[in-house]
Parts: sequence; structure tokens; C-alpha cells
Amino acid sequence: MDQNLNRRNFIKTTAAAGLAIASAAVLPGCSAATTGKGGSVSWKEEADVVVVGSGFAGLAAAIEAVAAGSSVKVLEKMPISGGNSIINGGDLAAAGTKMQAEAGIKDSVDLMVEDMLKAGSYLNHVEKVRLLAEKSSETVDWTMSLGVKYRRVNFHGGHSVPRAHATANASGGDIVKAELARLKEKGVNVAKNSKVVRLIQNDAGRVLGVEVKTGYKFGDENSGTTSFIKAKKAVVLAAGGFSQDVRMRMIHDPRLTDNLDSTNHAGATGELLREALKLGAMDIHMDWIQCGPWTSPDEKGFGYVPQFCERLVGYAPMVNPKTGKRFIKETGDRKVRADAILKFGYPVVILGDSYAVQRQIVPKILEAGMKNGSVKKYDTLEELARAYEIPVGPFLEEVRRWNSMVLNGKDTDHDCLILEGAKPTIEGPFYAARLWPRVHHTMGGLLTNLKAQVINQDYNPIPGLYAAGEITGGIHGAVRLGSCALTDCLVNGRIAGQEAAREQAWT
Amino acid sequence: MDQNLNRRNFIKTTAAAGLAIASAAVLPGCSAATTGKGGSVSWKEEADVVVVGSGFAGLAAAIEAVAAGSSVKVLEKMPISGGNSIINGGDLAAAGTKMQAEAGIKDSVDLMVEDMLKAGSYLNHVEKVRLLAEKSSETVDWTMSLGVKYRRVNFHGGHSVPRAHATANASGGDIVKAELARLKEKGVNVAKNSKVVRLIQNDAGRVLGVEVKTGYKFGDENSGTTSFIKAKKAVVLAAGGFSQDVRMRMIHDPRLTDNLDSTNHAGATGELLREALKLGAMDIHMDWIQCGPWTSPDEKGFGYVPQFCERLVGYAPMVNPKTGKRFIKETGDRKVRADAILKFGYPVVILGDSYAVQRQIVPKILEAGMKNGSVKKYDTLEELARAYEIPVGPFLEEVRRWNSMVLNGKDTDHDCLILEGAKPTIEGPFYAARLWPRVHHTMGGLLTNLKAQVINQDYNPIPGLYAAGEITGGIHGAVRLGSCALTDCLVNGRIAGQEAAREQAWT
Repeated sequence: MDQNLNRRNFIKTTAAAGLAIASAAVLPGCSAATTGKGGSVSWKEEADVVVVGSGFAGLAAAIEAVAAGSSVKVLEKMPISGGNSIINGGDLAAAGTKMQAEAGIKDSVDLMVEDMLKAGSYLNHVEKVRLLAEKSSETVDWTMSLGVKYRRVNFHGGHSVPRAHATANASGGDIVKAELARLKEKGVNVAKNSKVVRLIQNDAGRVLGVEVKTGYKFGDENSGTTSFIKAKKAVVLAAGGFSQDVRMRMIHDPRLTDNLDSTNHAGATGELLREALKLGAMDIHMDWIQCGPWTSPDEKGFGYVPQFCERLVGYAPMVNPKTGKRFIKETGDRKVRADAILKFGYPVVILGDSYAVQRQIVPKILEAGMKNGSVKKYDTLEELARAYEIPVGPFLEEVRRWNSMVLNGKDTDHDCLILEGAKPTIEGPFYAARLWPRVHHTMGGLLTNLKAQVINQDYNPIPGLYAAGEITGGIHGAVRLGSCALTDCLVNGRIAGQEAAREQAWT
Repeated sequence: MDQNLNRRNFIKTTAAAGLAIASAAVLPGCSAATTGKGGSVSWKEEADVVVVGSGFAGLAAAIEAVAAGSSVKVLEKMPISGGNSIINGGDLAAAGTKMQAEAGIKDSVDLMVEDMLKAGSYLNHVEKVRLLAEKSSETVDWTMSLGVKYRRVNFHGGHSVPRAHATANASGGDIVKAELARLKEKGVNVAKNSKVVRLIQNDAGRVLGVEVKTGYKFGDENSGTTSFIKAKKAVVLAAGGFSQDVRMRMIHDPRLTDNLDSTNHAGATGELLREALKLGAMDIHMDWIQCGPWTSPDEKGFGYVPQFCERLVGYAPMVNPKTGKRFIKETGDRKVRADAILKFGYPVVILGDSYAVQRQIVPKILEAGMKNGSVKKYDTLEELARAYEIPVGPFLEEVRRWNSMVLNGKDTDHDCLILEGAKPTIEGPFYAARLWPRVHHTMGGLLTNLKAQVINQDYNPIPGLYAAGEITGGIHGAVRLGSCALTDCLVNGRIAGQEAAREQAWT
């Protein structure tokens, strides 16, 4: 009270003197300067570590911080936990695992690093990529220790070998549920409908806690009650990317207008990333925004077709319906494929025969896709061609050409990898889906070091601030390879939680 | 005094209460928070508009602000004025000018916009590009009104037509000197050795002035005397890019290590851009850093070879010395050409015969290049080939092939534009130079609107803060076309000066 009186006097006198005064004594630098909000903070709650976001990364951070003996508060702005992670396909990239060895797949940390750097146009921060690859195998084991089960190792475009460890239900939800269960055992529950609107930082730059709106209803910025939560040790930002914020993504890549849908959950809107930047955090690679080349215009959101498509590449052809011909390396990276389809300006068609589909597609995914009409079944290739208005003759000729290359084990037209066990596309019935890209992943974000500390414009860590997952930038470079997001989130989420727990409490 | 006492009491009591207090009442948000510096500012000097940087953009801003009746202070950290602008080749891109019409060149604003967007991979902010192109022709007239003389319209790779208005001495110095002369007439001189180390902002986010080190010696951060300069109306940031800051450029593009030299003057180190970001400004396209494909390993800095090379493309062939063959569209954009040479890992060779060289190269540039040994002269093509260890037979065959395509007016191998007046490369003596890329331009920087106001993380202008030239991002997108930098600097520098002069003074 005494201080507030002093403070008001101070403001009055100096304002009268025509000088500019920070009215927001305990507010973070830039917010103070830009919002002009003021008053001293009274903390409603406190925890050693405050985690913002409840996807793979945030939950991994929370688990590690709790395991290290810290009290943890997990905040989620949406009414459900999991963010993009629960609508994710559940493929976890890892190199040199037991499952790969059992499947006869030769892989290594070096090969995974090289694949990620090549796809990333070598913009990736090499040491972060190497750390991720080195910890990838133990991360699979860690999820198993939480009870996650895996059924097989999948291939994703841009990788040199099958490396994507697929969860039993082909869903990131398998991992999120296991993480939530582990936290619940430890007495930690996710506080939902709790939106962090500001980071509280002192004049020395240390992050002290967060301003949160509890009872927040997504989309209604007037909803919720404001309070302050003290983070005695650190705040971990794991709030995801900004694929759903058309304004923000168009500033960095003007092509990504609202004519392009997004695969992301509605909450991927990036405002917390911008709050961190107000504290002087550094962002990188913000203009690298990935479109998924495997989404279907015949279903909403992420849908089922991505898994239908990505399991079939390397086993079946993808064609331009106007010509009936293949047009791209089906096993190529996402950017190359999405750019090619966007250049056509109309959807393309992926197809597979019964052998490929039965071998590669999880039955429940196939059923779901057929149920919502995004995946179709045809007795003959002619019937399939007519259904998509593909010129029949050229199409059949192209499939024959593809089949001969499959038998030779080499695609001399587009260099598509002919994968283990691939056979000619001949066995009816045949399955197909249309593909049209959607905004899928924002590679850019906060610059972090190997300890997951957020780096400021002077190249120093911001004390008490960590970040992991899609809110960060630099690991994937220009193009994130499929299945590497889970590894990124889990490896760096765990590191953030471990490091945050080691921080000295500020009071 | 009274306020300072209050303030100290305030800090003491609240610190005792264990609360975090902004000790830097009148300091900019983030700096206050991150530096912890404090105390109230006593202004040593003041001006309506404070311009930081004395290149094309800063001087244009100063001229316009003075013309609008504002008092102006121009600050330059280096011991000389002009930054990169005075070592620039003096080619100003403009569409639809009298000079183009006289030269029979058909050009338009739309064509210039399309060229810039295509080179920029459509990452450019279209409305900024259009404004630049629309004002380009009047900008040539404006420089003429300052006394700048032009000798011809040059072609630059990536443009559809010759559009680069070349100053009489083929030097940006022609324009810088004219701008400095105009300012001197108005009683404005550039304050050199004056480094802005911080921007001063009040709690409402308005920029009030700058903290400057006078008597600063570049490279010695302990040199100089600190004082504060009040900007009653606005601060204009025109401090250039960061091509010379290896650490900063490697964060955004790790490939650009210190193994790559830069064409820029030593002061292109980007620290003022980072100071602006501390205020919550938004940066974009930071990872697009351009390497010039036309610099020579046989001379330092920018050198003379860039003008030798860029005047010859479209008139003569460029070859890979290992094969003697052409390898790229010589008139293609900078990125494509630089990436191709970097991929080889060794320098390539550009050559021209006497006809092409006499037609295209300013005599003083040719003399200077030959004097420093970066440009060589040979009586025969065989002699030239032997000098660069190019296989003679394949090389002569390739030159013959090039010559036949020149006669046909079409390059069927690499789609190089065969430019007006091009003739076969047959007339000795022959001139040649080696090419190896250097870091040349940072496309990324501060996000600004059409008024050159700096935009913050909430998408709002930062009151009292403007920026123009290479310190900004968004106009050039992925790749800046040659000769468009001058247009950017002059068009947006003038706008920044005009708008800054219109601001309401804050006291």
C-alpha cells in the first residue's frame, strides 16, 4: 500500500513534469511499454514451474519437472487438452531403435541428421538437430515407459529409411493420454480454459510468472477472469505454432491467405509467441510455413487421408487427373510436393491396390476415410479413372509404366523410393483419394539453446523462460520432415522440464 | 529531483517487499526490462526528426523532413557518411521513365512488380512492392533535381527489361554526394562517429529519442561519450542491414559462416535493428540473406568485377572452368546463380570480347579492375582458356555454340536473355574475371507499413518510429533484384521523412 501510494505520487509528479514514466512498475518490459497497464502484481497461485500448453512438449516438460521434485502448473487455453498433438497421426521419428533393427532397417543418428538438414535447406541449427537425433531412440523408450505401444515403423517422404514409429492406434492421442495419465498419478491436472495473455518479467529481465485468464472461452477475448500465477523457477512455453492465424502467417508468407485451410486445431494462433517476442526474445525462420501435401478437400481438418497417402507413397502412384500421368517423386519432401500441387491449382489423386492398402493402411483409418467419403473404392482402374475424370488410356499406360519400375526396384521417371515389399498396382479393388494442401506447420519461432532456454536479442538466455515444440524455430529449417515434430516436442519438452526444475527459485 | 527521490523510495520499499520493480522509469520497455539501466533522461540535444544512418534512405528522409520545415539531426556511427550506398554501383531501378522511352525500352509498373514478386518467391508484401514501382520513375526525377546525372539504362539479372538507371560515374556516391550537398545547403550536416546504442520509449510505447555515443570509434564499444538526443516528432531508422555480423546472419542462415566474405562496408552489423526489436517491433524474412554471385575472389569488398559481370551478362557467356561449359542462365536471379557457384565449390569465369566490353563497361571500371588484377585481358580465347585452366577444346566449342545462339537471338540451353545489340564473342582481345559469391544483402528486417512506420507484435505502428532501406524487410521477399535497393531506399526514405515531419511533437 505504502509502495502504491509512493508510486502514484511518483507518476503524478513526473507526469506533471512532462516526463515519460513507466507506469507499469512490475510489468514485463515491452508489455509495460506497449500496454501501459500498471499496478503491482498480487499472485493468486504459484508453482515452481508453469507450463503453457498441453501438447506433447508441454506435458513432457511437466512430467520431467515433477519427476525432479518441482511443483508444476499446466495451463491450456482450450477446453480440451492436447492441442495439435491429439489430432496428430502418432508417428514418432527415431534413428537406431530396437524396432528398426527388428524390422531390418539400417539407420543412424548421422543419417537422420543429414535427412533433416537436407529437407531444411541447411537452415537448421545443426547442434539442435543432432541433439534431437541422438535422443530420438531413448525418447521412444521413454514413451514406452509411460505405457505407449507401437505397432510398426512407417516411412515418411524425405526420410532415407522408414523411421516413423507408429503408435498402436495411429494417433498422437496414444502419447498424450499416456502423458496425462502419468501426470495425474503425480497429482497434476491440466488447467483448461486458462489463457496466458502476458508474461511477467522484472527489470533485470527475469520471467516471474504469467497473467492468465481463467474461465476463458476460446475466441471470446472478453471472457475469463484475470489473475497472476507466480513461477518460482521458470515458465515453459509449449503453446504451439500459428498455422491458424491467417494475419500472422500472411505477414511472413503473403501467399497463405484464408483461401488455404489449415490442418491444425483452432487454437494454433501464435499469440503467446508474440508475447515472448515483446520481451525481446529472438525469432527465426518465421517465413517457412509448411503446407501438408497429403490433405484431402473431401474432409475437414487433418482428416484420415494424410495417413492413407503417406502409407501408400513408395507403394503406389500419385497422378495428375488432367493427364493421368505421375508428376512428382511421391516420397519427396512436403514442400516440393505441396508446391507442385498448388502450381496445378487443382487436387491430384493418390491410389493403391488391395495388396498395398491391406499391407499399409490401419483398418480403422481406411474405414473412417471411406465412411466420410474422402477415400473411395473401385473394382477396376478404368472405373477409378472415370470417377476422377482421368483420361483412361494415358492413365492405364502410366500405371503399367509404374508397375514395371516397381518390378525393377527403380523409378527412372521421378526417383520415387520403391519401398520394401512394394508390388505392382494390379490387384483390385483399388482405393483412391484426392489431395489438396493445407497449412500444416510453422517451422519458425523462438530461438532456443540446447537447454531449451529462450534467447534474447543480445544472444543471452532470458532468465526463467524456456520453450519447446512448434513455438520454437531453428530445428526443422526450411522444411520439417513428417514424424519429426513428435521427436522435437518430446526431446525438447523433456529438456525444458529438466532444466526448468534446476533453476534457482527467485524468491 | 523530487521525482527521483520518490522513485528511489519507491524502489527501496518495493524491493524490500520482494517485488520486482522497473528501475528504469523513462527507458524503453524491453531495454528497461533487459538492461536494468535506469535514471531519468536529461536530453543533451533535440530535433524534430532524428535520422539514424547516412546512406540513400537516411539522407532522403532528412531532405524530406527538412523540406517539410522540421529540424533534423542525422547520426552516423562510422567516420564517413554513406554506408553501403557510397560503395554501391549506382544503378537505380525504375519503370516507365523518360530514359527508358528514349532507349526504346518498353516497361511498366506492373512488369516491375511482377519481376520483383517472381524473384521474391511471392514472399514480398505486394502493396509495398507496388508503391515502390509506382514511385520509381518520379524518384529518378527527384535525384536529377538534386543534380544527379545518368548515363544509360542497364540490365540486371532477373529483370525482364533494362531498368537500372546508371549514374554518370557508375557509383552510388553520385547520389549520396548530391543528397549531402542538398542537406548542407539547408544547414544540416551528418554527425559522424555517433552511434545510437538504444531507443528511448515511454510506457505508452512512444519513441522519445535515442541514446547515442559521440566520439565513437567503430569496433571499440568502450569508446565515445554517452548522451541523449530528444526526437520531438520521430526517429527514422535507416541504419542498413547485417551482412557483416557473422553471428547474427548465422543464426538466421547457418551456412553463412566467416568463410564467406561480404561486399558490405564494415558497419553493416545490424545492432540497431535488434534494438528496435527489443521495443517489440516485428521482423520478417530474416533468413533470406543474399549472396552476390558476381564478386571476385581476386579483389576485396565489393570491388569492380560486379559491374564488369553484370554489364556483360546477356552479351557474353559464363563458364565452369572445370568443363569449359556454360552452367546457368547468366541473366538469371542472384540466388540461382550464387547457389550454383557455391555448389561447385570453386570460382567460375565470365568473359567478353572487345565489342561487348567496349559497348558495356564504363572505361574507369575496366581500368580499375585490370589495375587490381581482378580483370584480365587476353589476345585469344585459347590464351584465356589456358590462363584459367579451362579445357580448350570443349570451351571453344561452347563459345561457338553460344555465338550461334546469339545470332539466333535465343539461348536454347539455359534461356539466357540475348540482349539488345549482343554479337557473337569473336573479337579479340578478350577480357575475363573469376566469380565467387559474397554476402551482399539482408532481405529481412523490420516490418513497416506504407507510411514507413515500424509495426509492433500487436500489428500496430510504434508511435514516433519509422524505418527505411535495408533495415526493413518485406519488400524484396526471398531475393532482391539488382538495382532495386536504391529504389527501396530512396522511395521509402522519402516517405519516412515526409511522414515523420507530419508527426505531432510529443512536448
